[in-house]
Amino acid sequence: MDQNIPDIVIGRLPLYLRELSRMEAEQNRLTASSQELAERLGMSSAQIRKDLSHFGEFGKQGTGYHIHYLIERLTDILHLTREWPVALVGAGFLGHALASYRGFQRRGFAITCVFDNDPAKVGERVGDLVVQDAADMADALRGVRIAILAVPAGDAQATADALVAAGVRAILCYAPVALSVPDGVQVSYSDPVVQLQQMTYHLTLDEG
Amino acid sequence: MDQNIPDIVIGRLPLYLRELSRMEAEQNRLTASSQELAERLGMSSAQIRKDLSHFGEFGKQGTGYHIHYLIERLTDILHLTREWPVALVGAGFLGHALASYRGFQRRGFAITCVFDNDPAKVGERVGDLVVQDAADMADALRGVRIAILAVPAGDAQATADALVAAGVRAILCYAPVALSVPDGVQVSYSDPVVQLQQMTYHLTLDEG
Repeated sequence: MDQNIPDIVIGRLPLYLRELSRMEAEQNRLTASSQELAERLGMSSAQIRKDLSHFGEFGKQGTGYHIHYLIERLTDILHLTREWPVALVGAGFLGHALASYRGFQRRGFAITCVFDNDPAKVGERVGDLVVQDAADMADALRGVRIAILAVPAGDAQATADALVAAGVRAILCYAPVALSVPDGVQVSYSDPVVQLQQMTYHLTLDEG
Repeated sequence: MDQNIPDIVIGRLPLYLRELSRMEAEQNRLTASSQELAERLGMSSAQIRKDLSHFGEFGKQGTGYHIHYLIERLTDILHLTREWPVALVGAGFLGHALASYRGFQRRGFAITCVFDNDPAKVGERVGDLVVQDAADMADALRGVRIAILAVPAGDAQATADALVAAGVRAILCYAPVALSVPDGVQVSYSDPVVQLQQMTYHLTLDEG
């Protein structure tokens, strides 16, 4: 396996994994061609073949990819053979929405603790969990390496600092801010505007 | 301007726009090198130069990109010189979170109407808006081409069908489902799991 995979390639693997899992679940399919996968994902089949070639030989000319095998390999490559515990910080509207999100199931993650710095929210139930005081994060986060940040923009940096101090190494941030974190800590931003802007390119201005 | 820009390139332009806007706002900067932009975005400078070259000549050797000019050009290319009205469907936790999201401001979008099919929610205030009955979408959506889908997974396809029938051409979907839409309608999925999976690749399994 190639040891220097560009981040941009890694970024596409979860999309392949999601689409293949949907094909397997919805259609009970055994094989898929790179062309079909490409069409469903709106990209080129050459791109998919090139991306996957970093990890070995998956497809056969004429037969396509063996869906279940490719799902297993992607699951392995992305370190999803275990279920990662995830800390959720922020028990507002967004925190409640994330705690009840059904998409985490069987995809490698489970929210195992919820924090808020609002004393009125501490002790409240969010989904199956009870909100803990954000001041207790350092102790409560033992062994948790992934956190979702669902706090107001003004609290995001201080919360990220506390998470990093507690050992968190990957943060999914919903606040519209740019976080500053040390080397070795990953941050990914969930930003609806970036997604909307990717679509307006294809809309004509007179359609408004 | 090149007329056949790959979708994958278009997809990166909002990231450039966001990062350049942050650099301009936070640091009052006039120019940026492709190297600096690349470092902040975790990609290669060659990729950035290649992406932007589709749209003309932006940077000067040794001087870098003129930030304000590049922001204006990207705003123009992505059709963000106007503010797009956006319909929000779903007034649950996620809908409330989106209605109060501060990141839409000055980035080309404004949520102008909110719908729900729950009679108990119709008439309720969400941010500055009043929840309308989803049954009235066809009339209320006149001129709206963009919608955000924040309904439960089981309601997502029927809601998408109604939005498309009402003239919506771009849907940002938060439900963990694959929507089926006619040609000419764009769908983008906001999926925290895809973002988390992009990060676990870089985490070692013994860190758990």
